[in-house]
Parts: sequence; C-alpha cells; structure tokens
Amino acid sequence: MIESAKVAVVGVGNNTSALVQGINFYRHTGSLVGIHRSELAGLGVGDIDVVAAFAISEAKVGRDLHEAIFLPPNNFPRLDADLLPSGVTVQRGLVDATEIERVAHALKGAEVLLYSAPSGRPETARAYAEAALLAGVAFVNTTSDAVAREASLLERFEAAGLPLLGDDLASQFGTSVVHHALLRLLEERGLTLVSSYQVNLGGTEDFRNLVENPNTKKQSKLNAVGSDKVQMAPLGYLPHLGSQKIAHLNVEAQGWGGTAVSLDVRLRVHDPSGAAGVNIDLIRMAAAALRAGRGGYLSEAAALLKSPPGTAI
Amino acid sequence: MIESAKVAVVGVGNNTSALVQGINFYRHTGSLVGIHRSELAGLGVGDIDVVAAFAISEAKVGRDLHEAIFLPPNNFPRLDADLLPSGVTVQRGLVDATEIERVAHALKGAEVLLYSAPSGRPETARAYAEAALLAGVAFVNTTSDAVAREASLLERFEAAGLPLLGDDLASQFGTSVVHHALLRLLEERGLTLVSSYQVNLGGTEDFRNLVENPNTKKQSKLNAVGSDKVQMAPLGYLPHLGSQKIAHLNVEAQGWGGTAVSLDVRLRVHDPSGAAGVNIDLIRMAAAALRAGRGGYLSEAAALLKSPPGTAI
Amino acid sequence: MIESAKVAVVGVGNNTSALVQGINFYRHTGSLVGIHRSELAGLGVGDIDVVAAFAISEAKVGRDLHEAIFLPPNNFPRLDADLLPSGVTVQRGLVDATEIERVAHALKGAEVLLYSAPSGRPETARAYAEAALLAGVAFVNTTSDAVAREASLLERFEAAGLPLLGDDLASQFGTSVVHHALLRLLEERGLTLVSSYQVNLGGTEDFRNLVENPNTKKQSKLNAVGSDKVQMAPLGYLPHLGSQKIAHLNVEAQGWGGTAVSLDVRLRVHDPSGAAGVNIDLIRMAAAALRAGRGGYLSEAAALLKSPPGTAI
Amino acid sequence: MIESAKVAVVGVGNNTSALVQGINFYRHTGSLVGIHRSELAGLGVGDIDVVAAFAISEAKVGRDLHEAIFLPPNNFPRLDADLLPSGVTVQRGLVDATEIERVAHALKGAEVLLYSAPSGRPETARAYAEAALLAGVAFVNTTSDAVAREASLLERFEAAGLPLLGDDLASQFGTSVVHHALLRLLEERGLTLVSSYQVNLGGTEDFRNLVENPNTKKQSKLNAVGSDKVQMAPLGYLPHLGSQKIAHLNVEAQGWGGTAVSLDVRLRVHDPSGAAGVNIDLIRMAAAALRAGRGGYLSEAAALLKSPPGTAI
Repeated sequence: MIESAKVAVVGVGNNTSALVQGINFYRHTGSLVGIHRSELAGLGVGDIDVVAAFAISEAKVGRDLHEAIFLPPNNFPRLDADLLPSGVTVQRGLVDATEIERVAHALKGAEVLLYSAPSGRPETARAYAEAALLAGVAFVNTTSDAVAREASLLERFEAAGLPLLGDDLASQFGTSVVHHALLRLLEERGLTLVSSYQVNLGGTEDFRNLVENPNTKKQSKLNAVGSDKVQMAPLGYLPHLGSQKIAHLNVEAQGWGGTAVSLDVRLRVHDPSGAAGVNIDLIRMAAAALRAGRGGYLSEAAALLKSPPGTAI
Repeated sequence: MIESAKVAVVGVGNNTSALVQGINFYRHTGSLVGIHRSELAGLGVGDIDVVAAFAISEAKVGRDLHEAIFLPPNNFPRLDADLLPSGVTVQRGLVDATEIERVAHALKGAEVLLYSAPSGRPETARAYAEAALLAGVAFVNTTSDAVAREASLLERFEAAGLPLLGDDLASQFGTSVVHHALLRLLEERGLTLVSSYQVNLGGTEDFRNLVENPNTKKQSKLNAVGSDKVQMAPLGYLPHLGSQKIAHLNVEAQGWGGTAVSLDVRLRVHDPSGAAGVNIDLIRMAAAALRAGRGGYLSEAAALLKSPPGTAI
Repeated sequence: MIESAKVAVVGVGNNTSALVQGINFYRHTGSLVGIHRSELAGLGVGDIDVVAAFAISEAKVGRDLHEAIFLPPNNFPRLDADLLPSGVTVQRGLVDATEIERVAHALKGAEVLLYSAPSGRPETARAYAEAALLAGVAFVNTTSDAVAREASLLERFEAAGLPLLGDDLASQFGTSVVHHALLRLLEERGLTLVSSYQVNLGGTEDFRNLVENPNTKKQSKLNAVGSDKVQMAPLGYLPHLGSQKIAHLNVEAQGWGGTAVSLDVRLRVHDPSGAAGVNIDLIRMAAAALRAGRGGYLSEAAALLKSPPGTAI
Repeated sequence: MIESAKVAVVGVGNNTSALVQGINFYRHTGSLVGIHRSELAGLGVGDIDVVAAFAISEAKVGRDLHEAIFLPPNNFPRLDADLLPSGVTVQRGLVDATEIERVAHALKGAEVLLYSAPSGRPETARAYAEAALLAGVAFVNTTSDAVAREASLLERFEAAGLPLLGDDLASQFGTSVVHHALLRLLEERGLTLVSSYQVNLGGTEDFRNLVENPNTKKQSKLNAVGSDKVQMAPLGYLPHLGSQKIAHLNVEAQGWGGTAVSLDVRLRVHDPSGAAGVNIDLIRMAAAALRAGRGGYLSEAAALLKSPPGTAI
C-alpha cells in the first residue's frame, strides 16, 4: 500500500476547507462522487495527510485546522461526514522574507506546499516558494501571482529536483468551463456566434475582493472564453449565496440561412469545490514527481493551470 | 468552376423550405453565416440546383416550388433574400410501387434524390430508392425509415456505383446535441450525474406527428443522450411556436465532496434549419461520390446520420 | 386557551404527510415560516389534533400514522423536527356504502373529516360525507369529485348544522397561482398577450395519475389561467423529482408600439406543501364554524377552493 | 372630435424616439397593442402632435425630428410603420438660465412641455420649468431631478393654473414592476421570503450612465422593491443589447413546513417602450387638466410617478 502524500497548506480559507473536508469525506465514506481521477500515480483522493497549515488571521492561528476552516469569513458548507480534530494547529503565516527560515523549519515532514492564499501578494507567494526550496518540498501555486512563471525560480526548483506547479488553477467546473464548452460546440457545429454574455454572482470573501478589483479577473475570464463577441457583466457580490456561485450565460447565434439560435443557461456551483477538485490532482502530481526525483514544471499539470510557465505575467 | 449538383427532392415540407430558401439565400447574399462547411468536395452551399420536386399534397402539386414551400402546414419563416420563381413545378409523388418508372423518368438530369418526406412510410421510401436505382441517381434518406440499413438494397446501390446515404439525419444543432455536450462535459471534468431531464416543445406538423406517436422518438432521443439517469418529458405540440423548437434541459450533478452542481438550459432553435444544415452536406457528399464513381454507403457521412448501415432497424 | 381542533383524515398520501408533519413542525419549533394565517378563529397552526386516519393501502393500515406517512409511494420529505409516534393507528378505509356506519363510529371525537384521497372516486367521497353526517362531523373535500356541489347533500349538511367545504382545493402556491399573477400583471399594465405556455413536471403518485388521465386536469388548469392564448404542454412524470414540482412558464407580450416583452419563469415547489398550507385553513374554518353552529358552505373558504357549490360538476 | 394635444419635448433620446414613433404607429395602423389606456380624457394615443423639440447634441439640432430620433447613441428600433418627415426641426436646448425666454418663445402653440432629458441636471430641468411657466404651458418631468418636489415651484404652477407632473416616471413594465409583483404575491399567499436578487443588463446610453453612477439608481430600485432581503447585482452595460433590457430575478422562499420554493425569472423588455407607455398618459393628463383650468399636481398621475410631491428629494 502506497504511503499518503504529506501536504502543508498556506491559507485556511474556503478552498482549504473544501480540500480538507473533502479528503476526510472520501476517506471515511469510500464514496467516489464528483472525482475526476479516483487514483493518480497510485494515490487515492483520501491518501493525503495535511501535516501543517499557515494563516494570518488572528482568529485562525493557534486553532486546530478542523475548527479553523469553519471560522468567518469562510462559508463553505459542512460536508456530510464526521470530522475529528486534525491534530494540526494552524501556524502564523509569514509576513516578510525574514521569516522564510521559520516556515522552512515548520515544513519538516511535508512533501508538498500548497499555496492557497488570496491572490495579489506575489512577494509573499515567492517567499513561501523560497521556504519550500530551503526545506526540499514541492510547491504548488494556485493563485494568479507569478511563481512558476518566474524563470529563475523555476530553474532553481528544477536544479533541486523539486516540482514547481503553477500558476492559477483552472476550476474543475465553473462558468468558464461551461461557457467555453458551449462556444466550442457552436463552432464545431458550424453556427455563427452573434453575441454572448456572462453574469457571475457569488458570496465568498474571494468574490468580494474580485468585485472591488474587477479588472484583472474580468480580463482573465475573457481570455478564458476566447471571443471578442462575449461580454462580461460586472461581478455581483451577494452575501446570501455563501460559497455558491450562480452564473447566467446567454449565447445568441445564427444557424442555416441566418435563423436565430438562443441558449440561456443558469449554472449553480460551489466555487471552493471546483478548486479542491483540481488541487487534489496537483498535490498528487507534485508528490509523485518528488518521489520520482522529477523537478521543475510537470507537463501533465497543463490542463489544470491557467497561467503555466511561458505565459504572460 | 465546378458544376452545380443537381438534386431532386421528395417532400415539400419545412425541411425542404429551409433547404431551398437557404441555398437561394447563400447564393444571393454571399453570406456564410451558420454554415458548417463552406465548401465540400469543391461545392459551395449555393452550388446546388434543385431540378425536380415531389409531393402528395393536392395544394402543392402543380405549383412552382418557390410558392409551394410556403403553403400550410409549412411554417418555416421566409428568409431575408429575394426568391424568384424556381422554374421547377412540384410533381405528384408516388403512392405505390407501380409508379416507380414514372418517377425514375422524372429524375432525368438529377444526380441526387433527397428523400425528405415524413418518417413512417418505409415502403414509399424504398420505392423512391428503386426509382433512383433505375434512373442512376444517388439516394439520401433523411427519415428514420430503413433504407440504407436494408442490406440487399445497399448492395445493389454499391454494385451500380450509386451512393446511398442514410438513415435518419442528425440535426446540425438541437436538443440532443446540446444535452449530449453538457453530459460529456460533466464526465470529462469528473462530476457525477445525479439526474437530468429534457422537455421539447415545438409547433411543426412533424412535431404534431411525434406527439401522436411519441414512443419511437422518445426512445431514439434517449439513445442519443446515452444515460439512464436522463428523463424525457413528453413532447409538447404548441402551434404558436411555428417552426421553432424550445427545449428546457436540467442537469443535477455532484462535484468535489458531493456538493451540488446545477445546470438549467433553455434552447431555442428552428428545427428545419438544423435539418437543412446537414442535408446540404449529405447532398454534396453524394453528388461528389457519384461523380467519382464511388457507390454504396460513404463513411464520411457517419457523423451526420443517426442510424447508418449496421445499426438496428 | 382554545381547545385544539379534532380532525380525522381520509387518505394517507403526500398531502397528509405534509399536513401531519407540518402541524408537528410548527407546534414544536414555534416557527411561523410559510404560513398564510398564523391564527384563524383563534386556532394556531399547531392547534390541530389528528384523531383518526383511514387508508386503503395494505401497507399503511394498522401502522402508526407517523410511520405510515413515510411509506411508498409517498415521497414528501421528512421535515426538520422530531416526530414521536402519533398514537393514531391507520384504519381500513371504506370500499363501499355498506361501511358507512363503521366509519361513522370511528369518527367519534372528531370535529372535522378531511377527505384527502386521490380524486376520481366520487361514490367513495360521498360515502365518507354520509359517514360525517351520521357522526355529526364537518366535512372538507379537497378532491375534484363533486361533494359540496351536490345540492341535496349540501342541504342536508346545512340542515344538520354541519359545515361542508369543497370541492377541489386551490394550492397555496403553485404554477396556476404564478401564471395567473403574471397574466393579471400584464393586463393591469396594459400589455397585450401574444402567447404563453406552461410545462409542469412532477414526481408524485398524484402526478403519475394525472399523466395517465391528462385531459381533466389540463382543462381545469386552462380554466384557472383564463386565457385562450395560453397553451399547456403535456404533464411530465419524472420520478426523480419526488414531491417537487417544476414548472416552466413563458409569456410573450407586446408593449408600446408593439415592441416585444418576454418573461421566462422556472418555478420549483413541493406540491404537498401547497395543499397542506390550504388544508390547515379549511380545517380551522370548519372546526370554528361547527363550534359556532354554522352549517353548510362557508363563504370565507371561497378563495381556497377551485369548484365551490354552484360551479359546474 | 377632440383637438390633438400639442406637446413640446426636451431631449431627443431613445424615450422620445419610442414616444414619437409610437404615436405615429398607433395613428397610422389603428392598432391598440400594448396600450394601457386607449383613451384618456377623450384623447386617443394618436391624438398627440409634437410641435417642438429641444436637444443639445450638435448632430441632432437642425434636423427634422423624425431623422434626429435615429441618430446615435439612440438605438431604439425602427417601429413597423411609415414615418414621414415631421416638419418639426430640433432646436438647440438651453444651457443656462439666460435662455429661458428664448425657450418660452419657442413654446408658443404648445400645451405641454415633456422634459425627457437625462437625469442629473436639476438646474436645467428647473430652467425649462420656468420657461413653461412663462409660456403658460403644463410641465411633465420624467427625470429623477427635483422639480415637482420643489414646493415653491409647484405653488407657482398651481397659482398660474398650469399642471406640473413629476418627478421620475415609473415604467409601464420593467424589472421593478415584475419583481414587486412576485414579492407581493409571495406575501399574499403567506410564503416567507428567504432571499432574492435582481440583475439588470442593458445597452442604452442611459444604462451606461447608470453603470458609471450606480449608487443612486440602485438605492431607488431597492426602494421600489421594498425589502431588505432583496440584493441588487451591479448593473451591466452590454452594448449589443441595444435598447433592450434583460433582467434575471431570483426569489427563494419557504412554504408550509419550511419547504423550499424557488422562482427564477428572465425578463426581456425595451426600456424606452416602458417610458413611452407612461409618458403618453402623463401628456394626456396634463393637456386635459390645462384645458380644464386645473393647475399644480394631479393626483390621477400618482401611480405613474416614482417621486411625486411630498417624497424625499
């Protein structure tokens, strides 16, 4: 029987809650619902041990991880499985580069460091990457901050035989995935796109941050969809949605003879689930590669990342 | 410059209206909207000449084809392009096998016979196929009646060097196409399907026939979607919809940790456009193969047909 | 403090499950969510005691009412409140008029008999009404079978000082309610209705019966909506919906200058809740009137009934 | 036969296009589709003569009104009726109070001045009101700028026997109307509102202005809906929608026993039609009152205005 992958996480938000609860759910129920790859490099979805966690929220530091994931502003729901104390106490995250050594020390025993903090603090992201290098641990960057796209950093991970995966994870299932599939379908069938729009509504802290800084994400979403006929309505932060996202998509097209074709879609999904469903694969890929002595970027992760090495920063 | 394909049509219903009007639209506007293949074997979408047409409606027989396509119960809309008289007078269709020779004689000058009458009269379909054989003309069967699936008939077309395409065309874009794409997407992303339903509403004569004989089509649609978790609501004939079809699709699934994912889709499309967009390719394939001396079934048509040779009758 | 109303129920299906569970829910939680009238004639929604229950299902007869309501084909969900044994054992319902006396005897202690069996057995309905007369108990007919519309029966209840309410309850909130409100709104604002359709999907046994006998209900629904421009799609029985009903409504209209106005609505609701929310009022009206010595039909129930005395049978 | 009402308009945007085209449409087609009141005080919807028009766009000034209404950024569609030249040349609108006399002079022959410029310039609105006073013409303010709510101004109109109607017109049919009706329906039926949201998407210049200055309108819409459980997503300016507005409404509620009730609505409507459908009534009310010698505010206009005299400025 294969040994579980040992993971440390940075950030104890909704995505970490979904990941940690999900691992526990699959381990204890034996269920395989909603899983993309039930086994990856010999590792099942329950074969992950979280061995360390870092956060900067005063309320979360010092708490058991299995308590901390339910503290506000987290609002991912409690999954339907018993959750015993994890035995992992949330540690204070690093604030500047002087703390790299402390973090590296705390990574002892970990094989992978999953960086799952909010986007927008590239120095912090890279400081954690330095700590991973120092500790001999693989690094997975799920944020849009440039880490794997930093050529010099990537080279150093490669040289050290340490996997470095990033940047910015592509959700398992979300608005972009559905919108893109519909537009691709139109094209495959020979229809002509006339116009399309996308409205995204959500209730997480992440969503609130995006609403306050909409431009970056909007651009990134447009890229993901890949057509200039697609218009993005401003994101709507609706707290009562909790960790649910609701999207309204419309596609207007023309078929044979110019006749009208319309598609209206309403999608409801839990954003943090979409992240966890991909993180579980990135972690397993990184752990397996580390064990096999493969350092640097891993091509098998390409479909799971929005901005892999080589794309614009 | 390539010579236009010469086509005779059986049935002057909505699908023929969409085909004939569309050919005229593309020829005169130069537009390419809504076209799957702008060129196929050197033939553009406007490079089709309709040289004969057969119908059994008293009102349509004896009228110019470009008038007959607008007679009730046809309700496909008038496309936005001038439509001069076609010069083709609708002829009386055959009622029994004694008239095969008359029809064969009337096919002089045609390269392809497109059989586009209502489904449900297999003897009639095969009588027209006999006429095509007699006249040395390729045959395309768009109905669900077994013609290309009749092994002995297929062998005779093959032996005669005449293409035989069928049976039952797959629409360019319709409910099954969208539903199937969504279910495939779910599977690709690793989500677990919980339940799904499909409601189809339409206002054509074809739709009325299906409502009165729902079982065949319902089964065929289930096959097209390919999952036993998909439930089909009874078809609804709503005359005010005219040649539009409206479909309501729902997909309930589970993502990571069993969290809920919902998709609700409303699709609006003109059914006859979906047929014409595929017929235009079947005609061009058949004409090109005839000219090249290739008889029998054509593998390149596989994606355009629901029940090709070898599938159950 | 007012004494609770004593009720006997005929039929232990979903509607009775919703009623019985709901009374328990409101009594124990003190909640007032989803209630039309928190108090009616001094009676709260928890001030109802079910004192007898009749069913014909072998599986249900002889079981405690609080167990029987969860037996198949019932599929109304378990509400979020503890449910102790009721102490009421489900009795065998009457099959023919020879059993009227037995039932009347079993009604001892009841003030109201709520007839909540499936529609379509008018003789049975009237036999229970006879039992109520014999026992001196008010009668509420929630089915579309003619009871209160039988003039001679109504006169006898009136003469006996016993309330008789019916026929056919109007749901608290369902497709007709929403559709009617939208059409009324259009009219109030001066828009011109062009077309409208309604699709109803459900998963209860009642729904299955309607699908198999669609004509009556369809006509009744059309009456409820009150416009000949409204088209009803056939009902769809989708077992996975359980006691949920899903309706798709479309309204196409014209505003100023003939410009288009479209409304598309998706409604999701539990049918048995809509019934229980009205039954709770009919029971309280009947009990209060009985106590006040008012017999016959009660005008205050008019808005809760689809076919009151005087309407066509 | 009654004499037509003589109207002057300020602002030659979409709302004026809809009004002017609509009057012509009803006059020439005799149609009554989409009209709230076919006759009001003896005046039909076609019994309006536009006798003067003011704009500040260089492109519109000097053009015939029936040309100017189609100039960008106007994008209200061309209605289906011939539109001859109006004979009314668009005049330069006033920029400051020094031009009041010029405008008053140009109002000779008008009975009503309809102020239909963009909201947000209260001084301009009041300067036109002064011109109306000077010219002895009734004034209708369709913007949210305070005019009728200015007590001293209202008194002067009253003293002069001139009607003054305002402020801010309530659309004939729009998102607020539908949302309010649904919430009222829930309440009438005794359901408990859990949450609700509203997304508005539009493509007019007015919409673009609102998107850039969202706060005022958002607040005003919340007031119109009247519940703190209703959340408004940010307005989305999607140019391809033209003068159409699309709204997505969601209502989550609880029925009997706390069971879930969901309503999802998609509304599509032309905003300028909703304005014209109300302006036609305000004009007729004002003209009729002027002829009858009734000055000041008219209570019969209350339902057509969002901020009548006495409400907060």
